[in-house]
Amino acid sequence: MSAQGRAPHGAGAFARLRALVADLEPPAGLAPIRLDLGEQRLGLPPAALRAMEAGAAWARYPVLGGEPGLRAAYEGWLARRFGIADAIAAGRIASEPAPGAKQALAVALLLAVGRRRAGGGAPRPAVVLPNPYYPTYMAATELADGAPAAYDSGATDLPRAVALAAERARAPTAAIVLCNPASPSGALVAPETLRAVAREADRRDALLLVDECYVDFGLDRAVDGAAPLLAEGAARRMLVVHSLSKRSGAPGLRSAFVAGDPESVAAYAAANRNCGVSLAAPVAQVSAALWSDDAHVESFRTAAREAWAVADATLASVPGYARPPSGFFLWLPVDDDVAAARVLWREAALSVLPGRFLSTTDQEGHDPGLGRLRIALVHEPNLLREALERLAGVVGRAPPPARHAPPRPLNHPSSARM
Amino acid sequence: MSAQGRAPHGAGAFARLRALVADLEPPAGLAPIRLDLGEQRLGLPPAALRAMEAGAAWARYPVLGGEPGLRAAYEGWLARRFGIADAIAAGRIASEPAPGAKQALAVALLLAVGRRRAGGGAPRPAVVLPNPYYPTYMAATELADGAPAAYDSGATDLPRAVALAAERARAPTAAIVLCNPASPSGALVAPETLRAVAREADRRDALLLVDECYVDFGLDRAVDGAAPLLAEGAARRMLVVHSLSKRSGAPGLRSAFVAGDPESVAAYAAANRNCGVSLAAPVAQVSAALWSDDAHVESFRTAAREAWAVADATLASVPGYARPPSGFFLWLPVDDDVAAARVLWREAALSVLPGRFLSTTDQEGHDPGLGRLRIALVHEPNLLREALERLAGVVGRAPPPARHAPPRPLNHPSSARM
Repeated sequence: MSAQGRAPHGAGAFARLRALVADLEPPAGLAPIRLDLGEQRLGLPPAALRAMEAGAAWARYPVLGGEPGLRAAYEGWLARRFGIADAIAAGRIASEPAPGAKQALAVALLLAVGRRRAGGGAPRPAVVLPNPYYPTYMAATELADGAPAAYDSGATDLPRAVALAAERARAPTAAIVLCNPASPSGALVAPETLRAVAREADRRDALLLVDECYVDFGLDRAVDGAAPLLAEGAARRMLVVHSLSKRSGAPGLRSAFVAGDPESVAAYAAANRNCGVSLAAPVAQVSAALWSDDAHVESFRTAAREAWAVADATLASVPGYARPPSGFFLWLPVDDDVAAARVLWREAALSVLPGRFLSTTDQEGHDPGLGRLRIALVHEPNLLREALERLAGVVGRAPPPARHAPPRPLNHPSSARM
Repeated sequence: MSAQGRAPHGAGAFARLRALVADLEPPAGLAPIRLDLGEQRLGLPPAALRAMEAGAAWARYPVLGGEPGLRAAYEGWLARRFGIADAIAAGRIASEPAPGAKQALAVALLLAVGRRRAGGGAPRPAVVLPNPYYPTYMAATELADGAPAAYDSGATDLPRAVALAAERARAPTAAIVLCNPASPSGALVAPETLRAVAREADRRDALLLVDECYVDFGLDRAVDGAAPLLAEGAARRMLVVHSLSKRSGAPGLRSAFVAGDPESVAAYAAANRNCGVSLAAPVAQVSAALWSDDAHVESFRTAAREAWAVADATLASVPGYARPPSGFFLWLPVDDDVAAARVLWREAALSVLPGRFLSTTDQEGHDPGLGRLRIALVHEPNLLREALERLAGVVGRAPPPARHAPPRPLNHPSSARM
């Protein structure tokens, strides 16, 4: 695979980015700024971290399934955030700790594909996944030997896009994956849309797997989550993944949890307790404190709003710039994303992710990542302003790209326009 | 499943133990002592834990594949412990961090079964595993939809037992699992035996997966590990799993690594980086310090020797008592393991694991866990002496069990003799 070639799937996007610009030198005297990594720079509430210092706790086996205090924190947050206390009390929603969203999503897909393979005789059941996607969706589908079937997460009629992708796969559907808010676009999935996708999952006897890692980053209002659908039993089999990596800016904790119907959660729990990773007591204690606190999340959201204010001011004249309803990624249209990433590194010492590193070509030949850059707005305002001024200086020179133009063949970057 | 019934597999041994004694009350006034859990009570070197207090580090994404310092610590330990510096320098042995041995073993088996299923057309390739076993071997085989084929890890001719189990499975072999030292018996696998099993794995184009979590608990001398076989390329595909849970008494860290041939390690690394769990920076830093230090391991070994001295003194007259060459588990023969576990709880407030909770019935109808108790010697000498005196008071009353008697049908505990 050449540095600019397509990888077999989106996994290793950062490795591909390193390879993409390995032959280039940024301008001398210009400090590189990473805009490719969606990692908060806000730090954790120090009080929450005190449990990490308890040496003896690291010498104990983790409690499988989590301490009662951790489980109570999950349920408290779900009840408070989504208003579903009754369904939790009635036992209609179960939850289980997970060592990060990545593993939770992968194990859930593995179980869904395994179940479908065992039940239906199809050697490669389909996994319907959004495009662009979190690379783990694709990597886990391949690990489970499922057949990926991508739908455009920016489609106007999302349930129809999902149904068409499932139909075209010509194999029983093991799972439908949905990311809400969508990443990296930040687009919100309305409850009625989610309900229609849940019906589609049920019709196909598939798991509905909802990734809500960005659910607390609504910029103007709280994002509607899938938990109320869980409470009403909108899909027979449904798992929702929540994580502290984005919500609390704590990706080092590897702390997430799944909420879902009791049967699907029990299957995940059995797999994770026997074959996975349980949360150590100090991690569980810190996690419980973070799930129980909303103030630091509000401060993160405030920081995200400030970052978007900087972007609004700096990028107003950049063709295609638009502020999304949630999140901290700018999903910027450009003419050629791979060429743009190279030019931004060479001329402005900015690292950004080409959209195609997070997407695939669907069954209709469409790749929604082509001609997009993922730009993470996670630095403090002054550094961010400098980064975005450099960005505007480079991409502001380009003619406005046609946002819905058909994808063009990938030219060699040195001959491609940006 | 009744409280005393067989579970479909060995996973959940502790849950089964809780259910087994749920209807019993230990004697009033006798403090319960847990002998079922193999958890060291020695604590971590405090200096090693300082990195845990670095709050900012928890807010960063883990480095996929581990920091250079962590990888250097693995290689340093492998070179120092097994004398294979040259093979490491020559790139014949690769390594990769893992979030605990449980996950490493499970992912390795998943990949091995998937590879065999893809390659050979067999829907359920075989996984040849020791009996008794670490429950994860069996749970991972089931998760991967492989067919378990158990061999008696106490067999006199181990390579023959492995070959027979593989033969009887009547399916292509995906992997051969070997635990060295064996657990819970503590028996050592000689290098020439391991080499013969490696040849068997090669003959079958199977992965040789060696679990060496107890490799640093040789009581009289250092245990020979599989690393020299890796260095000499004894098997085409071979992974060895090492963990800090036992070696450093740090199960809360969830810190392990796999060493193996570069291709097998690369497959594990890709699966874990994309779909698994990476070590957070503070965990990696503490882990590197622990892999680089042998003094605390020697002190653990000294503590194990002291524990066995207490056992020698207390249990000398107990029928079937024998000190193993490694480890901290007594694998004690009794007449009926399930009945014995109940009586020990009811009469002596001791919790011990019935052997059958860690074993299965093999293709010849033999279950090596029947009539054995797993008793963990991990408490400080005074508490341990009290526990073992109570134990001797109960099992010392029983007539000597026939060690190799054919398994008897499981009687109802209340009518069974111990």
